[in-house]
Amino acid sequence: MKVYADHAATTQIYKEVLEEMIPVLKDGYGNPSSIYSIGQEAAKLLTKSRETIAGCIGAHPREITFTSGGSEADNQAILTAAELGEKTGKKHMVTTRFEHHAILHTLQKLEKNGFRITWLEVHENGIVRPDEVEDAIEKDTILVSVMAANNEIGTIQPIGEIGEICRRKGVLFHTDAVQAFGHIPIQTEEMRIDMLSLSAHKFHGPKGVGILYARKGIQLTSLIEGGAQERGKRAGTENLPSIVGMAKAAELSFLYLEENTRKVKQMQNELIAGLEKIPHARLNGDREKRLSGNVNFCFEGVDGESLVILLDSKGIAVSSGSACASGSHDPSHVLLGIGLPAEMAKSSVRISIGEDNTEEEISYLIQMVTEVVGYLRKMSPVWRELEKGERQHMI
Amino acid sequence: MKVYADHAATTQIYKEVLEEMIPVLKDGYGNPSSIYSIGQEAAKLLTKSRETIAGCIGAHPREITFTSGGSEADNQAILTAAELGEKTGKKHMVTTRFEHHAILHTLQKLEKNGFRITWLEVHENGIVRPDEVEDAIEKDTILVSVMAANNEIGTIQPIGEIGEICRRKGVLFHTDAVQAFGHIPIQTEEMRIDMLSLSAHKFHGPKGVGILYARKGIQLTSLIEGGAQERGKRAGTENLPSIVGMAKAAELSFLYLEENTRKVKQMQNELIAGLEKIPHARLNGDREKRLSGNVNFCFEGVDGESLVILLDSKGIAVSSGSACASGSHDPSHVLLGIGLPAEMAKSSVRISIGEDNTEEEISYLIQMVTEVVGYLRKMSPVWRELEKGERQHMI
Repeated sequence: MKVYADHAATTQIYKEVLEEMIPVLKDGYGNPSSIYSIGQEAAKLLTKSRETIAGCIGAHPREITFTSGGSEADNQAILTAAELGEKTGKKHMVTTRFEHHAILHTLQKLEKNGFRITWLEVHENGIVRPDEVEDAIEKDTILVSVMAANNEIGTIQPIGEIGEICRRKGVLFHTDAVQAFGHIPIQTEEMRIDMLSLSAHKFHGPKGVGILYARKGIQLTSLIEGGAQERGKRAGTENLPSIVGMAKAAELSFLYLEENTRKVKQMQNELIAGLEKIPHARLNGDREKRLSGNVNFCFEGVDGESLVILLDSKGIAVSSGSACASGSHDPSHVLLGIGLPAEMAKSSVRISIGEDNTEEEISYLIQMVTEVVGYLRKMSPVWRELEKGERQHMI
Repeated sequence: MKVYADHAATTQIYKEVLEEMIPVLKDGYGNPSSIYSIGQEAAKLLTKSRETIAGCIGAHPREITFTSGGSEADNQAILTAAELGEKTGKKHMVTTRFEHHAILHTLQKLEKNGFRITWLEVHENGIVRPDEVEDAIEKDTILVSVMAANNEIGTIQPIGEIGEICRRKGVLFHTDAVQAFGHIPIQTEEMRIDMLSLSAHKFHGPKGVGILYARKGIQLTSLIEGGAQERGKRAGTENLPSIVGMAKAAELSFLYLEENTRKVKQMQNELIAGLEKIPHARLNGDREKRLSGNVNFCFEGVDGESLVILLDSKGIAVSSGSACASGSHDPSHVLLGIGLPAEMAKSSVRISIGEDNTEEEISYLIQMVTEVVGYLRKMSPVWRELEKGERQHMI
């Protein structure tokens, strides 16, 4: 059996999305900036896609800027705030310890260039506290950036409350909603979001395309200078086939949000219940306030990476940490962020399911994880010490 | 008859490219940064694509960084040089008056931030003089950036000679080869190129993907911070389907370079000869040292944009100025750069053909341009003044 359970890393493109993309790849090659017919037809498709996506997040089409993905959108949002901060002398930003690296690394760079960054705690449950956001805002705060849901442990953040605080305090609020969109409702106006990042391949759209939403009145700073595309805020010939695909994926994700969530939530509950039967295993992050597809578990005495590799040999694709951080052997900053010791963080795996998974796959997942965890523990010196009582169990 | 003659703006994707892309779009969705099989299969395709592209420009695969296109690559090249310049106190750069906006605007931004930029003349023939590049290099010059071929008038620049000068003088040399690749041989080592930008959709690949070549030893500065993709130099989940498509397009463009050039050159000669029969018309830019597909003509007394619109009604897609500058009513900076008065610049059109055009299409193009130019002149007050001798002909 083949089970793809790394939906948080990337998702398979919807059949309907590919069907929309292929004709555009083939025949819709006109440059949307051109004034002749084939260019204008492309421009119309671009407009329609922008409208569709705007509709899915309660935004105005003019507030949508197409980017090459979530990382670019995150970078541009921070750059925009930084330039505004430079101009107004407001050089303080607030974020959390467990943001995506696209935010973390960009802010770390700003920190070297005279900005102060407050890194908020995310606590044991992996959820930011709005009162702590409020307390962190100072007179010279230009931006608060808090992700809508975490990419590793799936915990859902109180975005609406944070947005409300920021609006009241006159501070820009950006949210990286890359992991959240398609799984929980995201409404920019209702949630008082000023800037928001999305990436199509996280919701069954193509790779290499995303959006940066910026509320009316916010002048984006260009990350990529050049032609006048995207109202001068993002240069480069528009990637129309992928944009059309993203719009279709957004539409489907938006339309079937409830239905998909219900289905996935049920599988998630079974998976969590099944894995909790393994002794000395624990779910990382809040049990309730988490994305329906996310199951992040720590198995004491087991090396997460070995677990991933052995599960792969059983046809199962899951992840230790985020794909973006793969190759690194450091423990996940997210798991350290919720207070796990390095050893526990390294004993964790992220299983992220989607509505394309089946009940049979969930049973197989539980069976195989149980089997492989048992096998790895048998070989683990740490586990032997735990068994002999030479070491204290942490779970 | 439908004639697409705006290949310089964008090209139709090759059938073979789409055939390579579709299976990857469908089934090759694994995240190349993941350690499980489907991720590793994706990683292998990524490696293979990198090797193919490197092979087409005489580079080592490790010297290729995938980007979202030519504009991003141009921006990153300049940013890399700027950061190096900041570190070494070398804050002077040399470029030409008629670079693509991705270079122009990025350099103009640097100019506001303490860099000095020398904007080289491109002369009446639209070709940079190597001795003038050499004279422009100063002690604190960090970078020379000269495009390999111009996007509006197609003039081919003496890249190898400029590369030689830069190497000898110890100055970084970047070339925007977006318009040139697939039309003239580009060999990074032979031509002493340190950094080079490409965009797939200009050579029958997909939109939204390109490369930045950086010679071994050059540490690229990230434009997009985040995950560790592209050896930490370009964050964001790799856009594998498009990268695979780009590799195929590069391979085909490289393999059929001579054959395509021969075919297109012949059509170009016919087109130029045909259009030169129109009185008071002139080819812009050097006649010999130009891309085989480029025919940029000035028709005195005619508004270029009107010509484009009327030709569109005849099924012909051509361009007035570059697509990236569309929407602007300013005369082209390229045509002004080669010394055309604004009025003449506005009377110009770019016809850019490819090997997918046919002899019949060329005849139709000549016939229709002749007809429409005649029609527009009849309605033109400027032309009436010229006819009456109240105004001097410039051509």
